[in-house]
Amino acid sequence: MSFSRLLVTFSLMMMMAISNEPFTLAHKEEYKIYGFPYSASTWRVLAVLHEKGLSYYPITVNLRTGEQKKPSFLSINPFGQVPVLLDGHLKLTESRAISLYIESAHRSRGTKLLNHKNYKKMGIETMWMYIESFEFDPPATTLTFEQAIKPMTGLKTDYKVVNETEPQLEKVLDIYEERLKNSRFLAGNRFTLADLFHLPNIEYLMNTTTKRLFESRPNVHRWVAKIMARPAWRKACDANAWYDEMEN
Amino acid sequence: MSFSRLLVTFSLMMMMAISNEPFTLAHKEEYKIYGFPYSASTWRVLAVLHEKGLSYYPITVNLRTGEQKKPSFLSINPFGQVPVLLDGHLKLTESRAISLYIESAHRSRGTKLLNHKNYKKMGIETMWMYIESFEFDPPATTLTFEQAIKPMTGLKTDYKVVNETEPQLEKVLDIYEERLKNSRFLAGNRFTLADLFHLPNIEYLMNTTTKRLFESRPNVHRWVAKIMARPAWRKACDANAWYDEMEN
Repeated sequence: MSFSRLLVTFSLMMMMAISNEPFTLAHKEEYKIYGFPYSASTWRVLAVLHEKGLSYYPITVNLRTGEQKKPSFLSINPFGQVPVLLDGHLKLTESRAISLYIESAHRSRGTKLLNHKNYKKMGIETMWMYIESFEFDPPATTLTFEQAIKPMTGLKTDYKVVNETEPQLEKVLDIYEERLKNSRFLAGNRFTLADLFHLPNIEYLMNTTTKRLFESRPNVHRWVAKIMARPAWRKACDANAWYDEMEN
Repeated sequence: MSFSRLLVTFSLMMMMAISNEPFTLAHKEEYKIYGFPYSASTWRVLAVLHEKGLSYYPITVNLRTGEQKKPSFLSINPFGQVPVLLDGHLKLTESRAISLYIESAHRSRGTKLLNHKNYKKMGIETMWMYIESFEFDPPATTLTFEQAIKPMTGLKTDYKVVNETEPQLEKVLDIYEERLKNSRFLAGNRFTLADLFHLPNIEYLMNTTTKRLFESRPNVHRWVAKIMARPAWRKACDANAWYDEMEN
Protein backbone atom coordinates (compact mmCIF):
# COMPACT_ATOMS: atom_id res chain seq x y z
CA MET A 1 0.00 0.00 0.00
CA SER A 2 1.42 3.37 -1.00
CA PHE A 3 1.88 6.16 1.53
CA SER A 4 -0.88 8.28 -0.04
CA ARG A 5 -3.37 5.38 0.20
CA LEU A 6 -2.35 4.78 3.79
CA LEU A 7 -2.97 8.45 4.49
CA VAL A 8 -6.43 8.31 2.91
CA THR A 9 -7.30 5.18 4.89
CA PHE A 10 -6.05 6.77 8.10
CA SER A 11 -8.05 9.97 7.43
CA LEU A 12 -11.23 7.96 6.82
CA MET A 13 -10.68 6.02 10.04
CA MET A 14 -10.24 9.28 11.93
CA MET A 15 -13.41 10.72 10.37
CA MET A 16 -15.33 7.62 11.46
CA ALA A 17 -13.88 7.85 14.95
CA ILE A 18 -14.73 11.55 15.26
CA SER A 19 -18.24 11.32 13.83
CA ASN A 20 -18.91 8.07 15.74
CA GLU A 21 -20.91 7.08 12.68
CA PRO A 22 -20.44 4.03 10.45
CA PHE A 23 -18.51 4.78 7.29
CA THR A 24 -21.15 5.61 4.70
CA LEU A 25 -20.50 4.32 1.20
CA ALA A 26 -21.37 6.50 -1.75
CA HIS A 27 -24.87 5.56 -2.92
CA LYS A 28 -23.69 3.82 -6.06
CA GLU A 29 -21.42 1.60 -3.96
CA GLU A 30 -24.07 0.73 -1.38
CA TYR A 31 -25.96 -2.52 -1.30
CA LYS A 32 -29.56 -2.16 -2.40
CA ILE A 33 -31.90 -4.20 -0.23
CA TYR A 34 -35.40 -5.10 -1.33
CA GLY A 35 -37.18 -5.76 1.93
CA PHE A 36 -39.93 -4.91 4.36
CA PRO A 37 -39.22 -3.46 7.80
CA TYR A 38 -41.61 -5.93 9.51
CA SER A 39 -40.21 -9.00 7.74
CA ALA A 40 -38.18 -11.32 9.96
CA SER A 41 -35.96 -12.46 7.07
CA THR A 42 -35.22 -8.85 6.16
CA TRP A 43 -34.15 -8.24 9.80
CA ARG A 44 -31.60 -11.06 9.49
CA VAL A 45 -29.75 -9.27 6.70
CA LEU A 46 -30.10 -5.82 8.29
CA ALA A 47 -28.55 -7.20 11.49
CA VAL A 48 -25.48 -8.29 9.51
CA LEU A 49 -25.23 -4.86 7.82
CA HIS A 50 -25.44 -3.10 11.19
CA GLU A 51 -22.91 -5.47 12.82
CA LYS A 52 -20.56 -4.59 9.96
CA GLY A 53 -21.30 -0.87 10.19
CA LEU A 54 -22.52 -0.75 6.57
CA SER A 55 -25.21 1.57 5.28
CA TYR A 56 -27.63 0.37 2.62
CA TYR A 57 -30.18 1.64 0.14
CA PRO A 58 -33.62 0.27 1.16
CA ILE A 59 -36.33 -0.51 -1.38
CA THR A 60 -39.64 -1.29 0.31
CA VAL A 61 -41.66 -4.27 -0.91
CA ASN A 62 -44.99 -4.05 0.90
CA LEU A 63 -45.76 -7.57 2.12
CA ARG A 64 -49.10 -6.39 3.57
CA THR A 65 -50.44 -5.58 0.10
CA GLY A 66 -48.85 -8.73 -1.38
CA GLU A 67 -46.39 -6.77 -3.52
CA GLN A 68 -43.91 -9.68 -3.33
CA LYS A 69 -46.24 -11.87 -5.42
CA LYS A 70 -46.81 -9.32 -8.19
CA PRO A 71 -45.12 -9.76 -11.61
CA SER A 72 -42.89 -6.71 -11.13
CA PHE A 73 -41.30 -8.28 -8.04
CA LEU A 74 -41.41 -11.88 -9.31
CA SER A 75 -39.10 -10.75 -12.11
CA ILE A 76 -36.61 -9.83 -9.36
CA ASN A 77 -37.13 -12.94 -7.22
CA PRO A 78 -39.28 -15.67 -8.79
CA PHE A 79 -39.74 -17.22 -5.32
CA GLY A 80 -41.65 -14.07 -4.32
CA GLN A 81 -39.70 -13.41 -1.15
CA VAL A 82 -37.73 -10.66 0.50
CA PRO A 83 -34.97 -9.82 1.17
CA VAL A 84 -33.10 -9.51 -2.10
CA LEU A 85 -29.64 -7.93 -2.24
CA LEU A 86 -28.28 -6.07 -5.24
CA ASP A 87 -24.53 -5.50 -5.39
CA GLY A 88 -23.95 -3.88 -8.76
CA HIS A 89 -25.03 -6.54 -11.25
CA LEU A 90 -25.07 -9.32 -8.67
CA LYS A 91 -28.49 -10.27 -7.28
CA LEU A 92 -28.83 -12.56 -4.30
CA THR A 93 -31.86 -14.05 -2.54
CA GLU A 94 -32.18 -16.15 0.67
CA SER A 95 -31.43 -14.16 3.82
CA ARG A 96 -28.81 -16.61 5.14
CA ALA A 97 -26.94 -16.67 1.83
CA ILE A 98 -27.00 -12.85 1.68
CA SER A 99 -25.69 -12.73 5.27
CA LEU A 100 -22.81 -15.06 4.42
CA TYR A 101 -22.05 -13.00 1.32
CA ILE A 102 -21.83 -9.71 3.24
CA GLU A 103 -19.69 -11.32 5.95
CA SER A 104 -17.32 -12.79 3.33
CA ALA A 105 -17.02 -9.51 1.43
CA HIS A 106 -16.25 -7.54 4.63
CA ARG A 107 -14.61 -10.18 6.79
CA SER A 108 -12.26 -7.85 8.66
CA ARG A 109 -14.75 -5.02 9.14
CA GLY A 110 -16.98 -4.46 12.21
CA THR A 111 -18.05 -7.54 14.16
CA LYS A 112 -16.26 -10.63 12.88
CA LEU A 113 -19.18 -12.99 12.42
CA LEU A 114 -17.21 -16.03 11.20
CA ASN A 115 -13.76 -17.51 11.62
CA HIS A 116 -12.56 -17.39 8.01
CA LYS A 117 -8.96 -18.23 8.87
CA ASN A 118 -9.57 -21.47 10.75
CA TYR A 119 -11.43 -24.08 8.75
CA LYS A 120 -12.10 -26.25 11.81
CA LYS A 121 -13.76 -23.38 13.71
CA MET A 122 -15.60 -22.46 10.53
CA GLY A 123 -16.78 -26.10 10.36
CA ILE A 124 -18.36 -25.79 13.81
CA GLU A 125 -19.93 -22.45 12.89
CA THR A 126 -21.33 -23.93 9.67
CA MET A 127 -22.75 -26.89 11.61
CA TRP A 128 -24.64 -24.59 13.99
CA MET A 129 -25.92 -22.55 11.06
CA TYR A 130 -27.37 -25.73 9.56
CA ILE A 131 -28.77 -26.83 12.93
CA GLU A 132 -30.64 -23.52 12.93
CA SER A 133 -31.93 -24.18 9.38
CA PHE A 134 -32.99 -27.79 9.82
CA GLU A 135 -33.75 -28.23 13.54
CA PHE A 136 -34.67 -24.85 15.01
CA ASP A 137 -36.26 -23.02 12.08
CA PRO A 138 -39.03 -25.50 11.14
CA PRO A 139 -40.80 -25.59 14.55
CA ALA A 140 -39.90 -21.95 15.34
CA THR A 141 -41.31 -20.69 12.02
CA THR A 142 -44.54 -22.67 12.50
CA LEU A 143 -44.96 -21.21 16.01
CA THR A 144 -44.17 -17.68 14.78
CA PHE A 145 -46.64 -18.03 11.92
CA GLU A 146 -49.46 -19.31 14.13
CA GLN A 147 -49.00 -16.91 17.03
CA ALA A 148 -47.53 -13.75 15.52
CA ILE A 149 -48.11 -13.57 11.75
CA LYS A 150 -51.66 -14.97 11.60
CA PRO A 151 -53.08 -12.54 14.22
CA MET A 152 -51.45 -9.60 12.39
CA THR A 153 -53.33 -10.53 9.22
CA GLY A 154 -56.65 -11.17 10.96
CA LEU A 155 -56.36 -14.99 10.92
CA LYS A 156 -56.94 -17.20 13.96
CA THR A 157 -54.12 -19.07 15.70
CA ASP A 158 -54.58 -22.84 15.46
CA TYR A 159 -53.75 -23.93 19.02
CA LYS A 160 -53.74 -27.61 18.01
CA VAL A 161 -50.77 -26.83 15.74
CA VAL A 162 -49.12 -24.79 18.51
CA ASN A 163 -49.51 -27.65 21.01
CA GLU A 164 -48.12 -30.18 18.56
CA THR A 165 -45.17 -28.01 17.58
CA GLU A 166 -43.97 -26.76 20.97
CA PRO A 167 -42.61 -30.20 22.04
CA GLN A 168 -40.50 -30.26 18.84
CA LEU A 169 -39.00 -26.90 19.75
CA GLU A 170 -38.43 -28.09 23.34
CA LYS A 171 -36.34 -31.03 22.14
CA VAL A 172 -34.11 -28.61 20.23
CA LEU A 173 -33.88 -26.19 23.17
CA ASP A 174 -32.89 -29.05 25.51
CA ILE A 175 -29.89 -29.70 23.28
CA TYR A 176 -29.10 -25.96 23.14
CA GLU A 177 -29.32 -25.78 26.95
CA GLU A 178 -26.71 -28.52 27.27
CA ARG A 179 -24.47 -26.88 24.67
CA LEU A 180 -24.74 -23.43 26.27
CA LYS A 181 -23.67 -24.79 29.67
CA ASN A 182 -20.10 -24.89 28.42
CA SER A 183 -20.13 -22.29 25.66
CA ARG A 184 -21.13 -18.63 25.72
CA PHE A 185 -22.56 -18.82 22.21
CA LEU A 186 -23.62 -21.72 20.01
CA ALA A 187 -20.47 -22.14 17.95
CA GLY A 188 -18.04 -21.15 20.72
CA ASN A 189 -17.28 -18.21 22.95
CA ARG A 190 -17.83 -15.60 20.24
CA PHE A 191 -21.06 -14.30 18.72
CA THR A 192 -21.29 -15.55 15.11
CA LEU A 193 -23.77 -15.84 12.25
CA ALA A 194 -24.91 -19.11 13.85
CA ASP A 195 -26.40 -17.13 16.76
CA LEU A 196 -27.59 -14.25 14.58
CA PHE A 197 -29.57 -16.55 12.27
CA HIS A 198 -31.83 -17.48 15.23
CA LEU A 199 -32.79 -13.91 16.08
CA PRO A 200 -35.76 -13.26 13.75
CA ASN A 201 -37.85 -16.15 15.10
CA ILE A 202 -36.75 -15.53 18.69
CA GLU A 203 -37.74 -11.85 18.44
CA TYR A 204 -41.28 -12.88 17.47
CA LEU A 205 -41.57 -15.82 19.88
CA MET A 206 -40.55 -13.77 22.92
CA ASN A 207 -43.84 -11.92 22.44
CA THR A 208 -45.89 -15.14 22.56
CA THR A 209 -46.54 -17.73 25.27
CA THR A 210 -43.78 -19.87 23.68
CA LYS A 211 -41.45 -17.43 25.50
CA ARG A 212 -41.66 -19.71 28.57
CA LEU A 213 -39.78 -22.48 26.70
CA PHE A 214 -36.77 -20.17 26.39
CA GLU A 215 -37.06 -18.65 29.87
CA SER A 216 -37.32 -21.97 31.72
CA ARG A 217 -33.89 -23.04 30.47
CA PRO A 218 -31.31 -20.86 32.27
CA ASN A 219 -28.50 -21.07 29.73
CA VAL A 220 -30.82 -20.62 26.78
CA HIS A 221 -32.39 -17.68 28.60
CA ARG A 222 -29.00 -16.03 29.20
CA TRP A 223 -28.05 -16.56 25.54
CA VAL A 224 -31.37 -15.18 24.24
CA ALA A 225 -31.08 -12.08 26.44
CA LYS A 226 -27.52 -11.49 25.28
CA ILE A 227 -28.11 -11.80 21.55
CA MET A 228 -31.42 -9.89 21.57
CA ALA A 229 -29.76 -6.94 23.32
CA ARG A 230 -27.14 -6.37 20.64
CA PRO A 231 -27.46 -2.79 19.31
CA ALA A 232 -27.22 -4.05 15.71
CA TRP A 233 -30.19 -6.33 16.32
CA ARG A 234 -32.31 -3.67 18.04
CA LYS A 235 -31.70 -1.42 15.06
CA ALA A 236 -32.42 -4.23 12.55
CA CYS A 237 -35.95 -4.79 13.85
CA ASP A 238 -36.75 -1.12 14.30
CA ALA A 239 -38.96 -0.13 11.36
CA ASN A 240 -38.09 3.54 11.91
CA ALA A 241 -34.44 2.81 11.15
CA TRP A 242 -35.48 1.39 7.75
CA TYR A 243 -37.52 4.48 6.89
CA ASP A 244 -34.77 6.80 8.19
CA GLU A 245 -32.36 5.03 5.85
CA MET A 246 -34.77 5.71 2.96
CA GLU A 247 -34.64 9.42 3.64
CA ASN A 248 -30.84 9.62 3.64
CA MET B 1 9.06 -26.32 1.44
CA SER B 2 12.34 -28.22 1.84
CA PHE B 3 13.74 -30.34 -0.99
CA SER B 4 13.11 -33.59 0.92
CA ARG B 5 9.45 -32.67 1.45
CA LEU B 6 9.12 -31.78 -2.21
CA LEU B 7 10.58 -35.16 -3.09
CA VAL B 8 8.10 -36.98 -0.81
CA THR B 9 5.20 -35.02 -2.30
CA PHE B 10 6.38 -35.77 -5.82
CA SER B 11 6.79 -39.49 -5.05
CA LEU B 12 3.27 -39.65 -3.61
CA MET B 13 1.89 -37.91 -6.70
CA MET B 14 3.69 -40.42 -8.92
CA MET B 15 2.35 -43.34 -6.88
CA MET B 16 -1.19 -41.97 -7.27
CA ALA B 17 -0.70 -41.48 -10.99
CA ILE B 18 0.69 -44.99 -11.45
CA SER B 19 -1.89 -46.79 -9.32
CA ASN B 20 -4.75 -44.66 -10.76
CA GLU B 21 -6.27 -44.93 -7.30
CA PRO B 22 -7.23 -42.12 -4.95
CA PHE B 23 -4.55 -41.41 -2.40
CA THR B 24 -5.53 -43.47 0.63
CA LEU B 25 -4.90 -41.80 3.97
CA ALA B 26 -3.50 -43.84 6.81
CA HIS B 27 -6.43 -45.04 8.95
CA LYS B 28 -5.71 -42.69 11.80
CA GLU B 29 -5.80 -39.74 9.37
CA GLU B 30 -9.03 -40.80 7.68
CA TYR B 31 -12.39 -39.26 8.39
CA LYS B 32 -14.63 -41.55 10.41
CA ILE B 33 -18.21 -41.46 9.17
CA TYR B 34 -21.12 -42.66 11.29
CA GLY B 35 -23.75 -43.45 8.72
CA PHE B 36 -26.05 -45.95 7.09
CA PRO B 37 -25.62 -47.02 3.46
CA TYR B 38 -29.35 -46.57 2.72
CA SER B 39 -29.57 -43.11 4.30
CA ALA B 40 -29.99 -40.25 1.83
CA SER B 41 -28.13 -37.78 4.07
CA THR B 42 -25.22 -40.19 4.41
CA TRP B 43 -25.06 -40.40 0.59
CA ARG B 44 -24.67 -36.60 0.42
CA VAL B 45 -21.42 -36.73 2.42
CA LEU B 46 -20.13 -39.87 0.67
CA ALA B 47 -20.63 -38.15 -2.69
CA VAL B 48 -18.35 -35.31 -1.55
CA LEU B 49 -15.71 -37.77 -0.32
CA HIS B 50 -15.79 -39.65 -3.64
CA GLU B 51 -15.68 -36.40 -5.67
CA LYS B 52 -12.57 -35.49 -3.68
CA GLY B 53 -11.04 -38.96 -4.03
CA LEU B 54 -10.90 -39.42 -0.25
CA SER B 55 -11.26 -42.74 1.51
CA TYR B 56 -13.09 -42.93 4.85
CA TYR B 57 -13.61 -45.21 7.82
CA PRO B 58 -17.32 -46.19 7.91
CA ILE B 59 -19.14 -46.90 11.18
CA THR B 60 -22.59 -48.35 10.56
CA VAL B 61 -25.55 -46.98 12.55
CA ASN B 62 -28.46 -49.26 11.72
CA LEU B 63 -31.43 -46.96 11.09
CA ARG B 64 -33.70 -49.98 10.53
CA THR B 65 -33.30 -51.09 14.14
CA GLY B 66 -33.51 -47.48 15.40
CA GLU B 67 -29.89 -47.46 16.59
CA GLN B 68 -29.72 -43.67 15.98
CA LYS B 69 -32.20 -43.07 18.83
CA LYS B 70 -30.40 -45.23 21.41
CA PRO B 71 -28.40 -43.56 24.23
CA SER B 72 -25.06 -44.80 22.88
CA PHE B 73 -25.61 -42.87 19.63
CA LEU B 74 -27.42 -39.90 21.19
CA SER B 75 -24.22 -39.23 23.13
CA ILE B 76 -22.54 -38.79 19.72
CA ASN B 77 -25.33 -36.77 18.11
CA PRO B 78 -28.14 -35.65 20.46
CA PHE B 79 -30.34 -34.98 17.41
CA GLY B 80 -30.28 -38.73 16.69
CA GLN B 81 -29.26 -38.41 13.05
CA VAL B 82 -26.63 -39.67 10.69
CA PRO B 83 -24.21 -38.80 9.20
CA VAL B 84 -21.68 -37.67 11.78
CA LEU B 85 -18.08 -36.94 10.81
CA LEU B 86 -15.12 -37.37 13.14
CA ASP B 87 -11.87 -35.65 12.17
CA GLY B 88 -9.57 -36.34 15.09
CA HIS B 89 -11.23 -34.57 18.02
CA LEU B 90 -13.58 -32.59 15.81
CA LYS B 91 -17.15 -33.91 15.52
CA LEU B 92 -19.57 -32.51 12.98
CA THR B 93 -23.23 -33.24 12.26
CA GLU B 94 -25.60 -32.02 9.49
CA SER B 95 -24.74 -33.48 6.08
CA ARG B 96 -24.52 -30.09 4.32
CA ALA B 97 -22.19 -28.66 6.97
CA ILE B 98 -19.99 -31.77 6.77
CA SER B 99 -19.91 -31.44 2.97
CA LEU B 100 -18.82 -27.80 3.20
CA TYR B 101 -16.17 -28.74 5.76
CA ILE B 102 -14.64 -31.46 3.56
CA GLU B 103 -14.69 -29.16 0.53
CA SER B 104 -12.98 -26.36 2.50
CA ALA B 105 -10.33 -28.67 3.93
CA HIS B 106 -9.49 -30.12 0.48
CA ARG B 107 -10.36 -27.22 -1.82
CA SER B 108 -7.72 -27.92 -4.46
CA ARG B 109 -8.15 -31.70 -4.48
CA GLY B 110 -10.36 -33.73 -6.85
CA THR B 111 -13.51 -32.03 -8.14
CA LYS B 112 -13.58 -28.37 -7.13
CA LEU B 113 -17.06 -28.11 -5.66
CA LEU B 114 -16.97 -24.40 -4.76
CA ASN B 115 -15.31 -21.25 -5.99
CA HIS B 116 -13.30 -20.31 -2.90
CA LYS B 117 -11.27 -17.63 -4.64
CA ASN B 118 -14.14 -15.54 -5.97
CA TYR B 119 -16.52 -14.33 -3.29
CA LYS B 120 -19.14 -13.23 -5.84
CA LYS B 121 -19.29 -16.68 -7.45
CA MET B 122 -19.28 -18.21 -3.98
CA GLY B 123 -22.24 -15.93 -3.15
CA ILE B 124 -24.25 -17.39 -6.04
CA GLU B 125 -23.26 -20.93 -5.03
CA THR B 126 -24.29 -20.25 -1.43
CA MET B 127 -27.63 -18.85 -2.61
CA TRP B 128 -28.40 -22.02 -4.58
CA MET B 129 -27.38 -24.16 -1.61
CA TYR B 130 -29.92 -22.28 0.52
CA ILE B 131 -32.57 -22.50 -2.21
CA GLU B 132 -32.09 -26.27 -1.99
CA SER B 133 -32.47 -26.17 1.82
CA PHE B 134 -35.51 -23.89 2.01
CA GLU B 135 -37.36 -24.31 -1.28
CA PHE B 136 -36.53 -27.72 -2.75
CA ASP B 137 -35.87 -29.85 0.32
CA PRO B 138 -39.17 -29.36 2.22
CA PRO B 139 -41.53 -30.64 -0.53
CA ALA B 140 -38.95 -33.13 -1.85
CA THR B 141 -38.38 -34.67 1.59
CA THR B 142 -42.12 -34.97 2.20
CA LEU B 143 -42.58 -36.72 -1.16
CA THR B 144 -39.60 -39.01 -0.53
CA PHE B 145 -40.89 -39.89 2.92
CA GLU B 146 -44.41 -40.68 1.72
CA GLN B 147 -43.48 -42.63 -1.39
CA ALA B 148 -40.09 -44.21 -0.66
CA ILE B 149 -39.40 -44.33 3.08
CA LYS B 150 -42.88 -45.24 4.35
CA PRO B 151 -43.30 -48.28 2.03
CA MET B 152 -39.83 -49.54 3.05
CA THR B 153 -40.92 -49.57 6.69
CA GLY B 154 -44.32 -51.15 6.02
CA LEU B 155 -46.30 -47.91 6.32
CA LYS B 156 -48.87 -46.72 3.78
CA THR B 157 -48.29 -43.74 1.49
CA ASP B 158 -50.74 -40.91 2.20
CA TYR B 159 -51.73 -39.87 -1.33
CA LYS B 160 -53.57 -36.82 -0.04
CA VAL B 161 -50.23 -35.51 1.22
CA VAL B 162 -48.55 -36.46 -2.07
CA ASN B 163 -51.20 -34.61 -4.09
CA GLU B 164 -50.92 -31.52 -1.92
CA THR B 165 -47.12 -31.47 -1.99
CA GLU B 166 -46.44 -32.09 -5.68
CA PRO B 167 -47.66 -28.61 -6.77
CA GLN B 168 -45.19 -27.06 -4.29
CA LEU B 169 -42.34 -28.99 -5.88
CA GLU B 170 -43.60 -28.03 -9.35
CA LYS B 171 -43.37 -24.33 -8.53
CA VAL B 172 -39.73 -24.82 -7.54
CA LEU B 173 -38.97 -26.91 -10.64
CA ASP B 174 -40.52 -24.24 -12.89
CA ILE B 175 -37.98 -21.77 -11.53
CA TYR B 176 -35.17 -24.33 -11.98
CA GLU B 177 -36.29 -24.95 -15.56
CA GLU B 178 -35.97 -21.25 -16.34
CA ARG B 179 -32.57 -21.04 -14.65
CA LEU B 180 -31.24 -24.15 -16.41
CA LYS B 181 -32.15 -22.74 -19.83
CA ASN B 182 -29.11 -20.49 -19.62
CA SER B 183 -26.88 -22.36 -17.23
CA ARG B 184 -25.53 -25.90 -17.32
CA PHE B 185 -25.75 -26.25 -13.55
CA LEU B 186 -27.65 -24.29 -10.89
CA ALA B 187 -24.89 -21.95 -9.75
CA GLY B 188 -23.23 -21.61 -13.17
CA ASN B 189 -21.55 -23.75 -15.78
CA ARG B 190 -19.72 -25.95 -13.28
CA PHE B 191 -21.03 -28.72 -11.04
CA THR B 192 -20.92 -27.51 -7.41
CA LEU B 193 -22.19 -28.46 -3.96
CA ALA B 194 -25.41 -26.61 -4.87
CA ASP B 195 -26.21 -29.34 -7.42
CA LEU B 196 -24.84 -32.16 -5.27
CA PHE B 197 -27.04 -31.24 -2.30
CA HIS B 198 -30.14 -32.06 -4.41
CA LEU B 199 -29.05 -35.59 -5.29
CA PRO B 200 -30.30 -37.62 -2.29
CA ASN B 201 -33.96 -36.62 -2.73
CA ILE B 202 -33.75 -36.81 -6.53
CA GLU B 203 -32.30 -40.34 -6.35
CA TYR B 204 -35.34 -41.47 -4.34
CA LEU B 205 -37.94 -39.48 -6.28
CA MET B 206 -36.81 -40.83 -9.67
CA ASN B 207 -38.15 -44.20 -8.45
CA THR B 208 -41.60 -42.76 -7.71
CA THR B 209 -44.36 -41.30 -9.89
CA THR B 210 -43.04 -37.83 -8.95
CA LYS B 211 -40.35 -38.61 -11.55
CA ARG B 212 -42.70 -37.17 -14.21
CA LEU B 213 -42.33 -33.67 -12.71
CA PHE B 214 -38.60 -33.78 -13.48
CA GLU B 215 -38.91 -35.49 -16.86
CA SER B 216 -41.55 -33.12 -18.24
CA ARG B 217 -39.17 -30.15 -17.90
CA PRO B 218 -36.46 -30.59 -20.55
CA ASN B 219 -33.71 -28.55 -18.90
CA VAL B 220 -34.39 -30.00 -15.46
CA HIS B 221 -34.40 -33.45 -17.02
CA ARG B 222 -31.01 -32.89 -18.69
CA TRP B 223 -29.58 -31.56 -15.41
CA VAL B 224 -30.96 -34.48 -13.38
CA ALA B 225 -29.55 -37.04 -15.83
CA LYS B 226 -26.16 -35.34 -15.78
CA ILE B 227 -25.76 -35.09 -12.00
CA MET B 228 -27.20 -38.55 -11.28
CA ALA B 229 -24.71 -40.15 -13.69
CA ARG B 230 -21.62 -38.85 -11.91
CA PRO B 231 -19.43 -41.81 -10.87
CA ALA B 232 -18.97 -40.32 -7.39
CA TRP B 233 -22.73 -40.24 -6.92
CA ARG B 234 -23.29 -43.77 -8.23
CA LYS B 235 -20.69 -44.99 -5.74
CA ALA B 236 -22.18 -42.89 -2.89
CA CYS B 237 -25.56 -44.60 -3.09
CA ASP B 238 -24.17 -48.09 -3.64
CA ALA B 239 -24.47 -49.90 -0.31
CA ASN B 240 -21.83 -52.42 -1.41
CA ALA B 241 -19.25 -49.65 -1.63
CA TRP B 242 -19.92 -48.78 2.05
CA TYR B 243 -19.46 -52.39 3.15
CA ASP B 244 -16.36 -52.79 0.93
CA GLU B 245 -14.88 -49.74 2.65
CA MET B 246 -15.54 -51.42 6.02
CA GLU B 247 -13.47 -54.43 5.01
CA ASN B 248 -10.48 -52.37 3.92
